[in-house]
Amino acid sequence: MHSLENIRIVLVEPSHPGNIGAVARSMKTMGLTRLVLVAPKKYPHYEASKRAASADDVLDNAVVVDELGAAINDCTFVLGTSVRDREVKWPTLDPRRAASQLIEHLLELNGSMNQAAILFGRENSGLSNSEMETCNAQIRIPANSDYSSLNLASAVQIISYELRMIALQEIQHEQNFGGDKKLLPAEKRRTNASFAQREGHLQHLQDTLEQLEFIKSKPPVVLMRKLTRLYNKANLSVEEVQILRGILTAIQTQSSGSE
Amino acid sequence: MHSLENIRIVLVEPSHPGNIGAVARSMKTMGLTRLVLVAPKKYPHYEASKRAASADDVLDNAVVVDELGAAINDCTFVLGTSVRDREVKWPTLDPRRAASQLIEHLLELNGSMNQAAILFGRENSGLSNSEMETCNAQIRIPANSDYSSLNLASAVQIISYELRMIALQEIQHEQNFGGDKKLLPAEKRRTNASFAQREGHLQHLQDTLEQLEFIKSKPPVVLMRKLTRLYNKANLSVEEVQILRGILTAIQTQSSGSE
Repeated sequence: MHSLENIRIVLVEPSHPGNIGAVARSMKTMGLTRLVLVAPKKYPHYEASKRAASADDVLDNAVVVDELGAAINDCTFVLGTSVRDREVKWPTLDPRRAASQLIEHLLELNGSMNQAAILFGRENSGLSNSEMETCNAQIRIPANSDYSSLNLASAVQIISYELRMIALQEIQHEQNFGGDKKLLPAEKRRTNASFAQREGHLQHLQDTLEQLEFIKSKPPVVLMRKLTRLYNKANLSVEEVQILRGILTAIQTQSSGSE
Repeated sequence: MHSLENIRIVLVEPSHPGNIGAVARSMKTMGLTRLVLVAPKKYPHYEASKRAASADDVLDNAVVVDELGAAINDCTFVLGTSVRDREVKWPTLDPRRAASQLIEHLLELNGSMNQAAILFGRENSGLSNSEMETCNAQIRIPANSDYSSLNLASAVQIISYELRMIALQEIQHEQNFGGDKKLLPAEKRRTNASFAQREGHLQHLQDTLEQLEFIKSKPPVVLMRKLTRLYNKANLSVEEVQILRGILTAIQTQSSGSE
């Protein structure tokens, strides 16, 4: 199941080491192996190993990083899980549609170049707004509105299950219709921009808007969040980022000539 | 969600009280409330209460019985979960098809008379053959064949999630084709830009790029096609078109000032 190998589960500042172990177990039962921990409170820890049961290999191979950027810089598709409503709405998918879009994205390039990440927030407070802004879309698990408090490993279990269901369907499809799924039309063989490339574009955009004095008060949090959402929805390709940055450079050149 | 009220989760001889609590929590997050325990090893137990978190009401209302018959006697539809292959093959459904058949069954009589049960076996050995024979079908969770050891609460989480997804679809269907149409959630009420508004933005963009001399040769067919695709992918809202056109106006104003 090659596509599952290019998906990493990213836990942002998990508090309880037992949850980290339980997440490793949830992942492995569904064939996921790549776990990244962003600034875990207590890790390594015997509770993590205990709850991982025989998924200790997933735990042993887990990557620990200091900040979220390091976890997702090379990813061309990032999803963040949430049960909260947010002021600025992010594009929202249920787990099934999220898994479907993600696997489709990975298969666009035969999976060899694309890397995807799914972020899970802190046990108590989830993902911050700025963390959610690194995501192409948010996954909303359709939980009971009276009690939406899913255990971290349970949330990972549901998402991993949906990924596996979609991956199994893809394999079935390949078996039924042969390997020519690989011959995608040129339209599909686009290279998606990585998180770092998307960030580069957004910073360039903000700089330009400041130079234009379109942004007057600092910090332009709400405007930039809206623009981030807009461009994340478009799931930009590398070429599209180049076009947009070319336009921004042209604006900046003319704007500084006018001063 | 009436149909979920007629579904009970039956744990057969669970060993670890912590698992019972975690199961209660998994159920409640998906709107299931009826838990039946068949000869639990240790129950009640503080570990169960602790792991249940705020799903303690599900735990408080759990029914404890001595043998499986008492748990399912009034049920018209019984499913048993399994990851094992059995010598005598039982009709097997994946969680999605199982949930679909079960909800359909409950709705046949408007749910008022039908009761359904889903059995989960012991942590180590699952359900016995004779227990499986009480079932209309078995549910096979499509786990990793190298590591299919799902935690009890994780297995309940997946099945409960699928039940909820089907129940939500039924409600959606009723809203679409039945009587009272409720208001859509805020997420849905965002106003998408019309074709004319999208065209207006793209023309404004092209004018601006010409003014900036970013577009030198006419007609800029290829570039504009790429930009059109980019912004169409983003499925712009009315507000987003306004933001983008505000930026374009700011660029034009400064650009004409520099001439």
